[in-house]
Amino acid sequence: MRKHILRCITCNKEFDPKPGLYYCEDCGKILGTLEVIYDYESIKKETDVKEKKLDKKASMYQFDFLLPTKSKTKFDEYIGGTPLYKFDLLGLKDVLVKYDGSNPSSSYKDRASSIAINIALDEGNDTMFCASTGNAASSLAMLNAHTEMKTYIFVPSSIPDEKRAQLEISGAEVFAVEGTYDEVYDLSLEFGLKKGWYCRHAAINPYLLEGKKTGAFEIVIQNDFEVPDYVLVGVGDGTVISSLYKGFWEFKEIGLIDKIPKIIGVQAVGIAGVKTVFDKGKPYKPQAIEGKTIADSISVGNPRDVIKACTYIEACNGYFISLTDDEIVDAITELGKITGIFAEPAGAVPYGGLKKLIYEKKITESDTVCLVITGSGLKDVNAVKDTINKTSVTFDEVVKRFEE
Amino acid sequence: MRKHILRCITCNKEFDPKPGLYYCEDCGKILGTLEVIYDYESIKKETDVKEKKLDKKASMYQFDFLLPTKSKTKFDEYIGGTPLYKFDLLGLKDVLVKYDGSNPSSSYKDRASSIAINIALDEGNDTMFCASTGNAASSLAMLNAHTEMKTYIFVPSSIPDEKRAQLEISGAEVFAVEGTYDEVYDLSLEFGLKKGWYCRHAAINPYLLEGKKTGAFEIVIQNDFEVPDYVLVGVGDGTVISSLYKGFWEFKEIGLIDKIPKIIGVQAVGIAGVKTVFDKGKPYKPQAIEGKTIADSISVGNPRDVIKACTYIEACNGYFISLTDDEIVDAITELGKITGIFAEPAGAVPYGGLKKLIYEKKITESDTVCLVITGSGLKDVNAVKDTINKTSVTFDEVVKRFEE
Repeated sequence: MRKHILRCITCNKEFDPKPGLYYCEDCGKILGTLEVIYDYESIKKETDVKEKKLDKKASMYQFDFLLPTKSKTKFDEYIGGTPLYKFDLLGLKDVLVKYDGSNPSSSYKDRASSIAINIALDEGNDTMFCASTGNAASSLAMLNAHTEMKTYIFVPSSIPDEKRAQLEISGAEVFAVEGTYDEVYDLSLEFGLKKGWYCRHAAINPYLLEGKKTGAFEIVIQNDFEVPDYVLVGVGDGTVISSLYKGFWEFKEIGLIDKIPKIIGVQAVGIAGVKTVFDKGKPYKPQAIEGKTIADSISVGNPRDVIKACTYIEACNGYFISLTDDEIVDAITELGKITGIFAEPAGAVPYGGLKKLIYEKKITESDTVCLVITGSGLKDVNAVKDTINKTSVTFDEVVKRFEE
Repeated sequence: MRKHILRCITCNKEFDPKPGLYYCEDCGKILGTLEVIYDYESIKKETDVKEKKLDKKASMYQFDFLLPTKSKTKFDEYIGGTPLYKFDLLGLKDVLVKYDGSNPSSSYKDRASSIAINIALDEGNDTMFCASTGNAASSLAMLNAHTEMKTYIFVPSSIPDEKRAQLEISGAEVFAVEGTYDEVYDLSLEFGLKKGWYCRHAAINPYLLEGKKTGAFEIVIQNDFEVPDYVLVGVGDGTVISSLYKGFWEFKEIGLIDKIPKIIGVQAVGIAGVKTVFDKGKPYKPQAIEGKTIADSISVGNPRDVIKACTYIEACNGYFISLTDDEIVDAITELGKITGIFAEPAGAVPYGGLKKLIYEKKITESDTVCLVITGSGLKDVNAVKDTINKTSVTFDEVVKRFEE
């Protein structure tokens, strides 16, 4: 467990950590502005860091010199250390493809759930809760099933059957509420904080970014410390994209790399909450919009990590773009045909985003690019139901096909 | 690439390998009797083997001293090296749980597909084909999508939507044939062999076992070279179970371990093809039965690897048991509640088998046990659709639940 402080991203005020501290006391209880800050100057001097004693396949806990947890649970050893593939895509050579569908619950969210569970244990909690579009919840439910802690899950009743199955199988108490993600989020927060349960809401609890940032660390070490020019990732609440920035920033702070990539957030045209706030410019203010998309994992109208996401993405000269649902489905199928990788809608949007930016000549052949695929396509098969072939054939038809 | 010969398991005749050699020329073209044999005495003396220079998280290609391939493809580095968890289950401490759902296509079958693709490339093939209950096909289609080779897939039209989606997304040419797995298998074999396509049928092509055996190697090294007393695994064609035996046997041959576990094959009561042949006793003869089960991956009436499976399991004092479909569904949900792991039906049967054997006092507290979970539950969500909660709640109901 690494010593740290909490710092408000808006007013820079610093706080000593204490259980349940989720907002800056000076900034009027705006959630999602605290960041976890370590003593980077001291970490920089440590031998393991200086000698880059890091492993391309180890779990995310190899980065414990930049993690705030002490407890260990059974899945820790197999979270992170996910594949970084290289494919020639859309005219670009060796595009890096970080595939997080191989985590235990098949999504990027395991990185955050694991940290949350370990901190909850460190603090002696007996209950955890989470509101989620699906992946964060199924991740928490799965990874927490074997601990002594109870899990309450709040999801919109519209989540894909696959994610619902994961939740129910793990024995969590699930409330599939008739409402939008944004409404369910507020409801769960009201009860959760009142009851004193440990909060696995990545956008509010600053510690969850600490797990998610390890994806950036892995991109760096798996690519032999060469930082790509661009990193593209799907954006809902804005937490994963914020965590990627923080990961690259910290590795730069401790001297392991000397630049931060331009990070580009890809949203759905139908409900581009973070993009709306970012494009309006500073000061970034949370704002709720309405809309929808087939990419359930990024169907968020009131993004809770919007201040961090906008601030960080501005800092690295990144920006936000958006895709139509048709473009998202095309991204899934094209990525699949070229690479074999089946991504869920929110996992495929980086590919669609790259295609768009190449078309617009904003990314060219000379740029190095990493796509972050945050979840397996098996988590939402329904999303491609109208585009894939489902016909069957008779024996005679097969015979005819090959005897010609 | 390690030099090897092919040997007939029935008559012990040895052959030099040649492309397309799938049966012993002396034993009347019975498929599935050839095994790949290396020079174990010489391998035993190699430094890396003697010093056990093996890694708990490396891909299965770390075992290239016992593998017959030369080509490399993009997924190789991330196949195998899957988690070995330890859970207290059913009164037993530290039951080993080998979870292969974290492979690229979310099943054990990637180990075999990867070997098949690399050999097909070594031999200069331009087309591969596979008949499958679903997982082998989706694995081949995914891993082969990025190569220059064409993929023909033959599956029964009844395969789960999830596996069909994986197939279609990867761009393979899919024939979803109106017939049983056994019928589709014969049809594909007829065309495939006639056309000279490379055959990814694990039960016939002796090389595919070479990929699958690496699961046994990993159980050994991840458990610090302590061999469990029992290994339980689901059985359809009989290939995975045969491969586990061969893996333990080879590690014993080269002096890395000194015993082979009792391997227990778990089938479905509705269609226990291998068990039927095994229980009749020697000489083991392929036999077709009819029946069905919800566990699609092991719904095989005419098991093609039955001779190897029975011979090997007899050699290690193992045996076969079977579960009803209700017991299989219970196994999925119980395993999920205790561990958080969501297994597909055929992946959960080892848990159900363990429960049965503990009840029958055939396995007791003093035994060490490993369960091999061959595929993710996300590959067949439909299997649990009748047993999981799918109700939704209103805001008022949530409020009421927590205000009491």
